[in-house]
Amino acid sequence: MEPDEQAVRDTHERWIAAVDGRDLESLLASMTDDVVFMNPGRPPFGRDEFQLAFRTGHAQNHLHCTSELREVVVVGDMAYTVCHDALSVTPRDGGARLALAGDRITIYRKQPDGRWLLARDAHTLSPVA
Amino acid sequence: MEPDEQAVRDTHERWIAAVDGRDLESLLASMTDDVVFMNPGRPPFGRDEFQLAFRTGHAQNHLHCTSELREVVVVGDMAYTVCHDALSVTPRDGGARLALAGDRITIYRKQPDGRWLLARDAHTLSPVA
Repeated sequence: MEPDEQAVRDTHERWIAAVDGRDLESLLASMTDDVVFMNPGRPPFGRDEFQLAFRTGHAQNHLHCTSELREVVVVGDMAYTVCHDALSVTPRDGGARLALAGDRITIYRKQPDGRWLLARDAHTLSPVA
Repeated sequence: MEPDEQAVRDTHERWIAAVDGRDLESLLASMTDDVVFMNPGRPPFGRDEFQLAFRTGHAQNHLHCTSELREVVVVGDMAYTVCHDALSVTPRDGGARLALAGDRITIYRKQPDGRWLLARDAHTLSPVA
């Protein structure tokens, strides 16, 4: 495997581990300053709103996510991945667990120092019947 | 503007016009054989399921879509776009109109003959309150 492809895969694995492990600092270090997240049912958002949503989400719920990487393509200093994600949301106040699943395209950009950062992300995550 | 960026923009415009104009042949000619569409609430699908969904959707509804292209990035033979879409679905049987909106990342691949084809597409389209 090419080093850049391996680096993108590593970034993806770190991302999922950080979401699961409530590691906001790791996530912020893995995204570009101009990152754009696109989620169903809300306008696109960036770093600031991501932080707020992440803190609120973890404060109110036990979150557990898994992700299966299905495709990694690197061209020059840009890469995209396709993955299938599952998210379990269990309210800390004892409410019913919600299961979500969906698919995701992520765009990564290689930095001058060699790191690959998440730059654009669109997912279809929605409740599982 | 670079010719490749212009070509990707043209493909996007043709795509939206074809969805709006019920031109399935144009859409099929604008996607790769291995295209993957990712939509909220259903598993990823390819050409065959796209055709079926497109035919059924137009047979049962008047569809009208608009799309605002927000970003076009070309690197070598790969490109991605980010756009904001709106879709109006009016049942032909007289049911209530449904308005949807969402955001989309699309991956395009340049072909040996110079055409840019849609290869991966993830959108967050969901009902507007």
